[in-house]
Amino acid sequence: MIDKKQVMEGMDMVIVPGVMRSIVQMNLISNISINDGKIDITLDSAALSPETQEWLKDKIKNIASGFTGVSEVNINIENGKPNDLNKIGNVIAIMSGKGGVGKSLVASLAAVALTRSGYDVGILDADITGPSIPKMFGITDHPRGSNTGLLPVTSRSGIEIMSINLLLSSEDDAVIWRGPLIGRAITQFWEEVLWGKLDYLIVDLPPGTADAPLTVMQQLPVSGIIIVFTPQDLTAMVVRKAIKMTQQMEKPILGVIENMSYLYVPEINKKIELFGKSKAKEMAQAAGAPLLGQLPIDPELAKFCDKGNIERYDSEIYNDFIRNITEALHCGKKQVGKQKGGRYARS
Amino acid sequence: MIDKKQVMEGMDMVIVPGVMRSIVQMNLISNISINDGKIDITLDSAALSPETQEWLKDKIKNIASGFTGVSEVNINIENGKPNDLNKIGNVIAIMSGKGGVGKSLVASLAAVALTRSGYDVGILDADITGPSIPKMFGITDHPRGSNTGLLPVTSRSGIEIMSINLLLSSEDDAVIWRGPLIGRAITQFWEEVLWGKLDYLIVDLPPGTADAPLTVMQQLPVSGIIIVFTPQDLTAMVVRKAIKMTQQMEKPILGVIENMSYLYVPEINKKIELFGKSKAKEMAQAAGAPLLGQLPIDPELAKFCDKGNIERYDSEIYNDFIRNITEALHCGKKQVGKQKGGRYARS
Repeated sequence: MIDKKQVMEGMDMVIVPGVMRSIVQMNLISNISINDGKIDITLDSAALSPETQEWLKDKIKNIASGFTGVSEVNINIENGKPNDLNKIGNVIAIMSGKGGVGKSLVASLAAVALTRSGYDVGILDADITGPSIPKMFGITDHPRGSNTGLLPVTSRSGIEIMSINLLLSSEDDAVIWRGPLIGRAITQFWEEVLWGKLDYLIVDLPPGTADAPLTVMQQLPVSGIIIVFTPQDLTAMVVRKAIKMTQQMEKPILGVIENMSYLYVPEINKKIELFGKSKAKEMAQAAGAPLLGQLPIDPELAKFCDKGNIERYDSEIYNDFIRNITEALHCGKKQVGKQKGGRYARS
Repeated sequence: MIDKKQVMEGMDMVIVPGVMRSIVQMNLISNISINDGKIDITLDSAALSPETQEWLKDKIKNIASGFTGVSEVNINIENGKPNDLNKIGNVIAIMSGKGGVGKSLVASLAAVALTRSGYDVGILDADITGPSIPKMFGITDHPRGSNTGLLPVTSRSGIEIMSINLLLSSEDDAVIWRGPLIGRAITQFWEEVLWGKLDYLIVDLPPGTADAPLTVMQQLPVSGIIIVFTPQDLTAMVVRKAIKMTQQMEKPILGVIENMSYLYVPEINKKIELFGKSKAKEMAQAAGAPLLGQLPIDPELAKFCDKGNIERYDSEIYNDFIRNITEALHCGKKQVGKQKGGRYARS
């Protein structure tokens, strides 16, 4: 006789269009009951358009009817809120205070590293006026959704992404909003986006210590923060402001990362410290957190970012960093178990 | 017999403490009348503390009494508002949309160039959560002031500066404010700071298209905007948002500047395009404004900035840029005549 576990395994084959994840991974199945060959399945329609609901109902019916001994399949629709269905293990914010230091790069590399390790990962792009994440991943699709919420867009390697730039008619459009609206957009990205089950949600913060980081630290259950800086004194000063903010908001700093640490010029076999001597020790001390890496300036990496191929970038220099960042995240407050594969990635 | 012009010339010798500019340059003398050896001088006390007022009254009395044929000097104090006394020729905003591209560097270099050309220049640091200007100029003094307003702090070469960092007890302190407070701080820097007479006020904007640039474009009489970018695609996209904002707010763009355009490695006599191929032509076209310069990455310049010595930096590569930026500003809406020297600089 068929049991719930088997039905659930079957349901894990039903992929939500756009997201490329199953209805199980999106946490949309709230109940399964089996009685004498009759299966009742309750599907939550949060953030699903009527067309998507119908499409999913067909798929569910097809699969459930295929089990031996099943005579009838009923599908009930519930109208939940995305936030009630989201099960997110760790929320990690990438912060600097200073602009242009590589927060989005670190957020993207961290997400890629965790995905390669088998975790389910999302990125919430909290930079509303200068969003960089979609371009890094080469994503231009508009998110699907309903009047109850939105679905994130899935990257080639299966990272769930939500960014204001996915909602604009052109990526160049300016979002000329005052702070309260920016705070509200971020809250909506948290509450009204159907992230489903994720091991890690990486939040890419904009520069500054104003509305966006305040909203993230006050409204989202941030497990830890990673601080990004470059070696310039001027940068270090502004980054210390961000460190002070996280301390005042009582959020743990998991580690610090020095970006643009040096440039290696192979022709002369020399490392040039373009922006000054390393501030790694000093900043780790200020943050009371370990140094996770010193990243060089790599003109190749800039090309991967510009072409939306960050997921394909692979460099020996980055291996240490990627191992360290994965380890640092494992030491976060709410550790989650490694997922056993099962990603529905496009590539 | 003594005349008003002579008295005014004498008053131009009375320096306001902290600002290092005369009471004439600060526009504090609202009236002078001379009758049979009796001089009446009306001094505006906007932003002056009672001690400063007393100190200035003594100085004024000393100088005025020294003129031949003067038997009596009366000083009347008026209580104006800083904003009523400010006479600012051109307000120029430095914008990017993107962080870390060198807005503060361009703002500082532009101010230095204009000062070297003999103009009276101020910098309003509109980056409230990540202010860089005081550090570039090595300024740590707190501004003087009264309950009606504040005096800017003067740099070594005579540039008037106001920045939130001059008001904090430590430069590392975080300003954790939501947007409305940030907008208010900028409005106060405009209305309640006694800038006096300036040919140019350079406004250094933070990244983004939110509260700070909105407030500056809506509340300040911006004559023109200079756009700063770096060659990365990712940066160019965000900068195009800033260009769209200025177009929507109907503010003229005076020119665009490409920063971090390349690195020159003397050992191999080669220019390396670290962040990709130049976007100069493309960005000038998007902005509908001339290219004012392509600045290289100069590790020496980073040192000058970090040590607060931006005013001492002199490099051949920057000469063109400095000439272009000065020319572009001369083409601004409200052109002002070149001041005939008379700066009370410290160095």
